[in-house]
Amino acid sequence: MFSQTSEYALRAVVWLATEAEGPVGVQWIAEGTQVPESYLSKVLQQLSQAGLVISRRGVGGGHELSRPPNEITILEVINCVDPIKRITSCPLSLKSHSKKRCGMHSKLDEALQNIEAIFSQSTIDDVVNNPNCPPPLKEVRRGSRQRRN
Amino acid sequence: MFSQTSEYALRAVVWLATEAEGPVGVQWIAEGTQVPESYLSKVLQQLSQAGLVISRRGVGGGHELSRPPNEITILEVINCVDPIKRITSCPLSLKSHSKKRCGMHSKLDEALQNIEAIFSQSTIDDVVNNPNCPPPLKEVRRGSRQRRN
Repeated sequence: MFSQTSEYALRAVVWLATEAEGPVGVQWIAEGTQVPESYLSKVLQQLSQAGLVISRRGVGGGHELSRPPNEITILEVINCVDPIKRITSCPLSLKSHSKKRCGMHSKLDEALQNIEAIFSQSTIDDVVNNPNCPPPLKEVRRGSRQRRN
Repeated sequence: MFSQTSEYALRAVVWLATEAEGPVGVQWIAEGTQVPESYLSKVLQQLSQAGLVISRRGVGGGHELSRPPNEITILEVINCVDPIKRITSCPLSLKSHSKKRCGMHSKLDEALQNIEAIFSQSTIDDVVNNPNCPPPLKEVRRGSRQRRN
């Protein structure tokens, strides 16, 4: 249901939120999140284009979150890479459904609306510091925090 | 979020629930649902293999629902063609998450659980006869109910 890209984007943001103390090279994030480096580079590019991650090349560069984890929602991360597309109009372009969707598409959209609500009310900080769950990614061998670009 | 295949399967089941009075050839279902016939054939095959649709070849054959629409949930239709995959174990296979998922995957699974609940509580009959919505697919030029195999 949720794409591989969404999963990887969330891992990257969670890792940056918990493990990075400054700009970090993609190699370390890939190692810490178990995401192939080339795939992760594209995901980070999308997150950067959306303004959620600051990416700088060269010496002293790397990737870091643009905002603190308690100001980033799960919905924002997912919408950066694989947006939840609400069904706001009839996919069949039926004229008689132009003002009101049919029962089938209303029900599908109800589920999407529900997902949006759950994810918009949950920040990266919430999932990282959920007292009822083990912290995400923690067992993965951490990449050194040393910069490597 | 929901795949094209899920959308098409739902259209097919809704159309069979509302327009068919017996076994119907794929041509008519394709016309009534605006789904390419070759794609629809594969979808109907999946629905048939899952027991939701009865498909018979030859004279007098065609496709029809195996149960009345008030006994078929949206969840069943979607799970026939593109199952909702709950996150019941750690996707990274972390040992320390084997008994309890982390906060990130718990939250993703919470959304999936929510979708399952919404769709398992809603039958095809419910979406077809929702008094607050126009009926699905109705404006599409109907395929004749005449058998054509």
